[in-house]
Amino acid sequence: MIEIINGGGVASASGFTAGSTHAGLKTETGVPDLGIILSDRPANSAATFTTNSIESPSVTASRKRKKAGISRGIVANSGCANCSVGSQGLTDAEELASLAASHVGVSGDDIYVASTGMIGVELPMALIRQNIGNITLSDDGGTEFANSIMTTDSKHKERAVSFMHDGKTVTVGGAAKGVGMIHPNMATMLCFITTDADVDQKFLQSVLSESVAVSFNMTDVDSDQSTNDSVIILANGASGTEQIEEKSAGADTFVEALRYVCTELAKELARDGEGAQTLIEVIVEGAHSTEEARKSAREIASSLLVKAMVHGKDPNWGRLVMALGKSSIQLEEQKIDIFISDIHIVHKGIAIPYLKDAVVSAMNSEQVDFRINLNIGNSSATAWGCDLTEEYVIFNSAYST
Amino acid sequence: MIEIINGGGVASASGFTAGSTHAGLKTETGVPDLGIILSDRPANSAATFTTNSIESPSVTASRKRKKAGISRGIVANSGCANCSVGSQGLTDAEELASLAASHVGVSGDDIYVASTGMIGVELPMALIRQNIGNITLSDDGGTEFANSIMTTDSKHKERAVSFMHDGKTVTVGGAAKGVGMIHPNMATMLCFITTDADVDQKFLQSVLSESVAVSFNMTDVDSDQSTNDSVIILANGASGTEQIEEKSAGADTFVEALRYVCTELAKELARDGEGAQTLIEVIVEGAHSTEEARKSAREIASSLLVKAMVHGKDPNWGRLVMALGKSSIQLEEQKIDIFISDIHIVHKGIAIPYLKDAVVSAMNSEQVDFRINLNIGNSSATAWGCDLTEEYVIFNSAYST
Repeated sequence: MIEIINGGGVASASGFTAGSTHAGLKTETGVPDLGIILSDRPANSAATFTTNSIESPSVTASRKRKKAGISRGIVANSGCANCSVGSQGLTDAEELASLAASHVGVSGDDIYVASTGMIGVELPMALIRQNIGNITLSDDGGTEFANSIMTTDSKHKERAVSFMHDGKTVTVGGAAKGVGMIHPNMATMLCFITTDADVDQKFLQSVLSESVAVSFNMTDVDSDQSTNDSVIILANGASGTEQIEEKSAGADTFVEALRYVCTELAKELARDGEGAQTLIEVIVEGAHSTEEARKSAREIASSLLVKAMVHGKDPNWGRLVMALGKSSIQLEEQKIDIFISDIHIVHKGIAIPYLKDAVVSAMNSEQVDFRINLNIGNSSATAWGCDLTEEYVIFNSAYST
Repeated sequence: MIEIINGGGVASASGFTAGSTHAGLKTETGVPDLGIILSDRPANSAATFTTNSIESPSVTASRKRKKAGISRGIVANSGCANCSVGSQGLTDAEELASLAASHVGVSGDDIYVASTGMIGVELPMALIRQNIGNITLSDDGGTEFANSIMTTDSKHKERAVSFMHDGKTVTVGGAAKGVGMIHPNMATMLCFITTDADVDQKFLQSVLSESVAVSFNMTDVDSDQSTNDSVIILANGASGTEQIEEKSAGADTFVEALRYVCTELAKELARDGEGAQTLIEVIVEGAHSTEEARKSAREIASSLLVKAMVHGKDPNWGRLVMALGKSSIQLEEQKIDIFISDIHIVHKGIAIPYLKDAVVSAMNSEQVDFRINLNIGNSSATAWGCDLTEEYVIFNSAYST
């Protein structure tokens, strides 16, 4: 049983503080662009990173921290991806970690690094050196931190939940940013999660990987994939409960809590995709395997023509069939059922004579659901995307200029 | 040495006639929507089809004709994809072939079938039966045929070339339609090619497959992939020359001619993508293998963020790096060179301090070229795409309504 903490985020769990400042990476005066999350004690950590073969040195630096498995915190900047800048990139990422670490009184090796923004320009280290000292950490600094990692996000994204374990309250909270270059397999997104649960490090990594697989990796804005994606979790045990490990007491609830935080943040990313007006939820049921259900749900949520038809509130279900077929999964056309926002559109592969106006009306909503039952197996998966709008094009035609 | 035939198309080669009519599949009065290509004698034939696991029964019917290897012609309709309509689809495709065949006096088994348009609605056979007799075939009917296969194409697409072989003139001509759902591995596109060369059937299939691999399969409009894609070639030998087979006299020139027709038509498809204003050419050089060069060139040409930056004439080369990395090919970041329309932007993985206005100016053109040298091997490939515009979104938001 998990409870939602209204307005909660990365500083909700015991022993965590967060904060941010305007260092000058973004030109708008006062807009925060540099943030820190700190645990008051060593925390078990786990992480997943981009699979793009060109990665930001900030990710490279964080991979090193992940290996250690124990961490004290995270420093993150927006405005500059610190990517494709040669060997200077790793030098700068390490200095960024060291600067953050000495500001909060820990070692640079204990601080994860994350960057998001323009590719191909160096981190303005002079500005960072000058301003990182202005960051004040507090246990209500979660929102301030969530604001500092935004790029073209229209709003900050944070979620927190709590549950009872071993007679005490345990909290899991996270902050994320998304918007463009969002596609399965770690998209242009950053997500930082903190928990005061005491969690076995190996179990923490496996729960995180599985939660990312069903949340962020099932989300698509534009099929592009960033060089900087990172999801990092810190578990500091400050709740004072017994350790949670695989199959121990509290394990199932911890999985539920982490999955909830990841899924809700992932849906927020899709809902806030550049120019997006409508959240798309795609459920594929009755597939031969979970892998095939996931693959086809993602393919449908990623299809430009599907995204455009949602924008136009056009029940052009042939495009769902096209995207389903493109995913190359096992299927039998004459067994397929399709529902648009719960209205049965296709039965056994053939259109039902439905009232088109009713479907257009059902699609005129903040969320449109596509449910496809392949009727050949027992596996299912859910993916999320957003509609493709004129604003996406206008936005991305002039990002750097 | 091949020569371009201005205004040439599917009826340019000897022994071929073509024509079309308005059968009523499209609502605009007088717009042709049903066409036939006929060879006056049996022709060796070859074809490639969609890899989408849901395919139109029109494709299924054509696969059967391909197996026979010999054909007399092609019937094609626009306005209706004849897809996702249950078992009626194959019945209708076979009847369409028979109706066309009896109109021109051959057997239904000798006529290929192709359909393009809306998915999920049945072919209006009553209208086709009523009107197919109005098709008049002639040796200057190529353009009329090319017009009849258009859907949202802004103009018809045809090309023809000739070359000398065995002391006689040999002609290769084609017509294509494209526009939406265009992506590597057979896109929403139809292409029909005729030649009066006498070509060995096995050699014909292998030359066609290779030509399609470097042309249509290297073209992207929106990463979506149709259920109906077909490229069909008929070689009727009416030029009266010796047969062309692998390594025989004329083989190299025939390959050159077919590749030219396919490549030019493929570029036309990209240039005429829905809402497109700019043709994008992506050349990846210095790759480890041809397969890797092709994969990465296609990935870049398919990237929404790359398409959007071309539309905005924004030299945001980080997106090229992102798309390159997403393709998961072998690369060494510190060896990469990037040129935008011949201006050197990135050397050894790091930005050159270029004059941004000059690049913006170079991108203000009907065609934008991206050349990426990986500098780790000797293989290269070229892909084509088009920019992503507000018009694409407006267009595809309201296709069926």
